[in-house]
Amino acid sequence: MRGRIIKVGLLGLGTVGGGVYRVLQSNRELIAGRVGARIEISRVLVRDVRKDRGVPLPPGILTTDPEEILNSPEIEIVVEVMGGTGAALDHVRTALARGKSVVTANKDMLAVHGKELFQLAQEKGSDLLFEASVAGGIPIIRVLKQCLAANRIQQVMGILNGTTNYMLTRMTNAGRDFQDVLREAQALGYAEADPTNDVEGYDAARKTAILASIAFNTRISFQDVYVEGISRITTEDITYATELGYVIKLLGIAKDTPEGIEVRTHPALLPQSHPLAAVSDSFNAVFVRGDAVGDTMFYGRGAGDLPTASAVVADIMDAARNIVHRAPGIISCTCFEERPLKPMGQVRSRNYLRLRVIDQPGVLAQIAKVFGDHQVSLAAVTQRDTRGDRAELVLITHEVAEQNLRDALAELGELEVVEEICNVLRVEDDG
Amino acid sequence: MRGRIIKVGLLGLGTVGGGVYRVLQSNRELIAGRVGARIEISRVLVRDVRKDRGVPLPPGILTTDPEEILNSPEIEIVVEVMGGTGAALDHVRTALARGKSVVTANKDMLAVHGKELFQLAQEKGSDLLFEASVAGGIPIIRVLKQCLAANRIQQVMGILNGTTNYMLTRMTNAGRDFQDVLREAQALGYAEADPTNDVEGYDAARKTAILASIAFNTRISFQDVYVEGISRITTEDITYATELGYVIKLLGIAKDTPEGIEVRTHPALLPQSHPLAAVSDSFNAVFVRGDAVGDTMFYGRGAGDLPTASAVVADIMDAARNIVHRAPGIISCTCFEERPLKPMGQVRSRNYLRLRVIDQPGVLAQIAKVFGDHQVSLAAVTQRDTRGDRAELVLITHEVAEQNLRDALAELGELEVVEEICNVLRVEDDG
Repeated sequence: MRGRIIKVGLLGLGTVGGGVYRVLQSNRELIAGRVGARIEISRVLVRDVRKDRGVPLPPGILTTDPEEILNSPEIEIVVEVMGGTGAALDHVRTALARGKSVVTANKDMLAVHGKELFQLAQEKGSDLLFEASVAGGIPIIRVLKQCLAANRIQQVMGILNGTTNYMLTRMTNAGRDFQDVLREAQALGYAEADPTNDVEGYDAARKTAILASIAFNTRISFQDVYVEGISRITTEDITYATELGYVIKLLGIAKDTPEGIEVRTHPALLPQSHPLAAVSDSFNAVFVRGDAVGDTMFYGRGAGDLPTASAVVADIMDAARNIVHRAPGIISCTCFEERPLKPMGQVRSRNYLRLRVIDQPGVLAQIAKVFGDHQVSLAAVTQRDTRGDRAELVLITHEVAEQNLRDALAELGELEVVEEICNVLRVEDDG
Repeated sequence: MRGRIIKVGLLGLGTVGGGVYRVLQSNRELIAGRVGARIEISRVLVRDVRKDRGVPLPPGILTTDPEEILNSPEIEIVVEVMGGTGAALDHVRTALARGKSVVTANKDMLAVHGKELFQLAQEKGSDLLFEASVAGGIPIIRVLKQCLAANRIQQVMGILNGTTNYMLTRMTNAGRDFQDVLREAQALGYAEADPTNDVEGYDAARKTAILASIAFNTRISFQDVYVEGISRITTEDITYATELGYVIKLLGIAKDTPEGIEVRTHPALLPQSHPLAAVSDSFNAVFVRGDAVGDTMFYGRGAGDLPTASAVVADIMDAARNIVHRAPGIISCTCFEERPLKPMGQVRSRNYLRLRVIDQPGVLAQIAKVFGDHQVSLAAVTQRDTRGDRAELVLITHEVAEQNLRDALAELGELEVVEEICNVLRVEDDG
């Protein structure tokens, strides 16, 4: 069976495409042994065949005509690493419609057009695999779909964006402020010139939607995810969090609760003893709690040409095995339920609050009364950093419904003694 | 396809068997949706049908006759959770010979009879799946065989035994000594009355052999693994390690080197910043370095009825999917290479040494000369804990071949000024 050759067409030869090409070349004997068939890239779609890509390519392999791949009867697997939702989407549709298996790393495309594409794959009995779309080299899709499939998943919590994790790590370890580490991340090429997508949590939220969909077998889209970014985290928050025994991380969180699925992406205080707390720099990690397996965590590089290629090539190998064994589509889309979402106002969590108040007798009593009126009970109160007639109050609440907290904060904002509600962050420490 | 029923025969209803039964019962709808077929346990082999097992069982499901499972044409998957290499082995052989798919958690059986059983499964085109045999609920077998299959694996390093990890954690955090935490572990049911198998590293070594075989596509047996246990670790070693920025862990290590495969299980000093360093109590974790993916880690419960059942049921689900899609054996044994083992004397590592010496001028010079004569160079030397005319020397070597270190230690032992070589531990900190 090792003699059988499975031909692959590659759409795109950028960072990830180049990585895929190199991994398939350098490990080709190992890969053939492990799959039971040779995998051969026979055509690569590019925009300019003359551009030097630093990858040694056999003559004639490059093409600017997608039909040379999509219409080739001998190409059985199409790998889409162009990105975007323009031509990439058209090509993936065509490839699936023609019965080819498709491997993609394109989370933007899946976030918007996933339903249609998975349906098409299922009708045609083809594979549509997308391991690289979440957490790069960490095989979290296969872990959820296959390895932990015996479990009712209770919680998925991930550090899914390397740029912001790098920034928060630098803020914590070097005591630098947000703007400062953002410039550093841009200089290092970790953050883009317009960093909105990373810094405001949109990238992590897209990945959270994909993970939640798989974990809870129900389609959850980007629009369903409550999102907050990290741009309002200050060095003060970092310092207080450290003193209180926490680290601040941007988390993608999905939980199964009796009132529905919670799905949100926001910065949060995590106990220093939590397995995710030690995940630093640009590493990603996903914590999964299942009813049988208990707590698990999966850690690795969330981006980069070779880590992403590791995931794409694993998908190609699965698709090839499935073709050899005539079983494409063996693990297909599993969104067979329609679970309700829990409104954000009902989400319960502990909270960290930092307030600037006028330093005079009776202030704490006024504040405590407002919290009490809204059923917000306080687990810890510390007054710090008194300057002149202003003091900073740092409070940790017990678990409370988001709506009660919001109502309390609105009323607090009206108090004359409260000068500023400096920051409010959720605390994730339910064990 | 959801209507199709796949019947399963369970051999054994002990801790793991009971867990498997309960997980298949409580998550049966989810599992059916995820597999595309219903999974039903139709017969359970036990020794005594009247014993109460605390699991609600339909009448007549229990049997003492293995042929009711092995000879049943409607049972397509046989799950072996009896343990041992007696009847379990006979039954697995028979089930495979009759073309049934087999799921097992039995690492002892695979360590000795793996070759024969995998060959039989391959001939018959059946699945022989064994996720639960290493690291319980952590899906490390599938991760290596499938998720990271695009990589040339460079290194696998695991905390594979929960009992010893619990003991080392207690020694580190509570400052207690080996005998003391062993008694505690026995009282808690973590350690057996005869703790040899855990404490001397044999259990971890068996798992290391399985992981190395899969990672390097070459059959490695328990006998190939160099083993040391943790019984000679003292509170002094723990204290020095902590001061030097390390934790002591019992590690299963397998590395691919130009001179062959290194495979060993022993306690080692790991930098506190290493992803495995934070893995405490009875948790397990496996660190994997691949040439494309870089550093990854997989963390979870290594034992217990439900975590182990999570792995067994995932295997049952894979086997069932493969039966539905007529593709059993799609991922089979991958020991297609014959790689040489690197002799232990050639293994290179840094080392921690603790010596008790006579406290007089010129001692360090004598010791340093012996090391120098054997090409052992020292990275750090500290003299501590001088009592009367005795001093304790703690040394960290640079990387050195094991044989050179052994020769140096033999010669050191001859020196009159060296009263005792208290301990020698490898340091794993190659990045």
